[in-house]
Order: sequence, then C-alpha cells, then structure tokens
Amino acid sequence: MIQETIITTQNSSGLAHISPMGILVRSDDFIIQPFRPSLTLNNLLETKTAVLNYCDDVRVFAGCLTGRRDWPLVPAEKINGKVLECALAHTEVELVRIEDDSIRPRLFCKAVHTVNHSPFRGFNRAQFSVLEAAILTSRLNRLPIEKIAVEIDYLRIGLEKTAGERELEAWAWLMAVIEKYKAEVKA
Amino acid sequence: MIQETIITTQNSSGLAHISPMGILVRSDDFIIQPFRPSLTLNNLLETKTAVLNYCDDVRVFAGCLTGRRDWPLVPAEKINGKVLECALAHTEVELVRIEDDSIRPRLFCKAVHTVNHSPFRGFNRAQFSVLEAAILTSRLNRLPIEKIAVEIDYLRIGLEKTAGERELEAWAWLMAVIEKYKAEVKA
Repeated sequence: MIQETIITTQNSSGLAHISPMGILVRSDDFIIQPFRPSLTLNNLLETKTAVLNYCDDVRVFAGCLTGRRDWPLVPAEKINGKVLECALAHTEVELVRIEDDSIRPRLFCKAVHTVNHSPFRGFNRAQFSVLEAAILTSRLNRLPIEKIAVEIDYLRIGLEKTAGERELEAWAWLMAVIEKYKAEVKA
Repeated sequence: MIQETIITTQNSSGLAHISPMGILVRSDDFIIQPFRPSLTLNNLLETKTAVLNYCDDVRVFAGCLTGRRDWPLVPAEKINGKVLECALAHTEVELVRIEDDSIRPRLFCKAVHTVNHSPFRGFNRAQFSVLEAAILTSRLNRLPIEKIAVEIDYLRIGLEKTAGERELEAWAWLMAVIEKYKAEVKA
C-alpha cells in the first residue's frame, strides 16, 4: 500500500528539507523510494532518520511543487529531526537497510515513535483533486498536453463541489504552473 | 467545505442506521443534507442526535452501497448513539435547526464532543478511487454508461498503483454492482 506523506529530513548540520513522497507501507516497514538525485536520499544516508508527516493540508503538497517549501516545523520527539506543525499525525523512523539502485534506491525504515496530534476529519474530494493535480504537475514534461487538460477538467468537478479555502489556494498554485507550461509549449 | 463521512443515527428504540454522506462544514456548524426519503433524516428528527464518523476504511463506504451495512458499532460517549468501531475519529452532534425542503432538507447540527481514536496515515490514492467509484455507483441510473466506463478506467490507475487489501476488496464490491448494471442495460 502506498501512502502519500510529507517527508522531513535534515543533514548533519540540522538543515531541514521537506518533500512530498509516496511511501510503500508493508506491515511495520516503511519503504522510501526517492528518485536520484534527491536531497531526501542524501539526508537519510547522512543522518539515518526521517519523519513521515501525515498531513491533510494540501497546500504543503502543492507548495513544495511550486516553490513554496517554507512550512512551520517543530522538533521531533525521539529522533533528531523536524515535524511539520500542520501534520495531523507523524511517525519518526530510522533507516535500517538500503537496496541500492542507480535510478531509485529503496530505503527500508522502521518506526521509532508515532504521535497522533489532531483528529482526521473525513475524506474530502477536493483534497484528492489537488493531490492528483500535483502529481500531474510533477510530470508535465512526460505527459501529452491534451491528457493533462482532460484530467484537470475531470478533477475540477470534485474540487468545485467540495473545496475549502486551503484546497482552492493549493489548486490555484498548481494551475498557474500548468498554464505557464502550456504557454511555453505553444510559444 | 464538504467532508465525506459515515453518519450513524438511531431511532427511539435504539436501532442504528449507518450511511455514507457528504457533510457541509461551516466553521463550527455541520449541515447534513439527506435526500428524501432517508432513514438518517427520520432518525435525526426522532432522536435529535447523530455521530459523524471519520473513517478511512473505504469498505464501509462501498459496503453501504452494495448491501453490506453491518459494521461493528460501540456506544457514543456523550449522546445516545453509536460510533463506528473502525473510525479514526468521530464527532457527536445534536440537531439545532432545520431548513425544510421537499427534496433535500438541511439539518444544522452542533458538535457536542469529538474523540481522536487513531492517527491519520496520510492520503492514499486508492481510497479516493474507491470513494469516487462509490459515488458513481450511487448514480448509475442517472449517468451515461460510456461516462461511467471512462471514469472507472481513470480511477483504476490510482487504485492499482497504491491499494492495500481493504481498498481492493471495496473496489471489487463496487465493480460487481457496475458490471451487473451494465449487463442489465444491454439485456
């Protein structure tokens, strides 16, 4: 099963990095599979720890893809690391084992500590629309422009029916990037 | 903002009813808008209370649409009511005011008590695929069969990439209903 989380890592100087990433969850193991090159990979190899932030504020996902990486952090509880302040819950993990790969190494991690900060409030279709649009945005170069347009039109339906302010703000950030890309392709 | 929740209500004899429903959340108010006829509406008018279950087990959503309504319940804490055992969190609400309507009355409710049972584990694209497929299933009669097929094909991509066992089971229940409907339409 793949869970879409926000991973926070830091280097040995304590400089933090925030990155949205799909994590493979297999019973008690968390397998992080960053594509090279990756600051998350470098930091994990350097300090052997990470925080998996379970976050429903889709602005963090959209923000990290549109140049907005400065989200409030607080110290982790059991490891040297940082936690996203807006996370509903988080798990602090330690690196256990690596399956190296020139494209996409697999980092096997083990949970050290999980904290439940705030209640989940149910599914929201607009959050899903933003998440899928963020994934599209990260693959703009690799997808036909017509396919992107069709999928965005589909995702907009759920967005407009169910969004709150956070979802509308995140959607607008992504649409600006997609529109800019479309204009560049046409030019 | 619309949150997709599972509402549990009961009549004055204590007989419980479980129903997936999108709730309009406006600051501290929860507005429940059931289409008539609705057992959720009847129960709310009779006992003036409900539980909003924030549940990430998509089998409950798919199950309620495919004749599987028997999910484990436990007593609510502050009101006469029942809570879904698998809910990550829940809010107990009281009915405050009604805007009546012959098609879709609006029931304004106020939170009495919220409990945070288990941590949110991040977004999962397969859960959203199941949720969207459940919404399609509930509207089969009102949608062209071609539109349903196209949307299911799109939703299957995220499902196959990210699902766990619960998501695959829920998806299979919905696909069985859709296939049966398609066969009936053709016959």
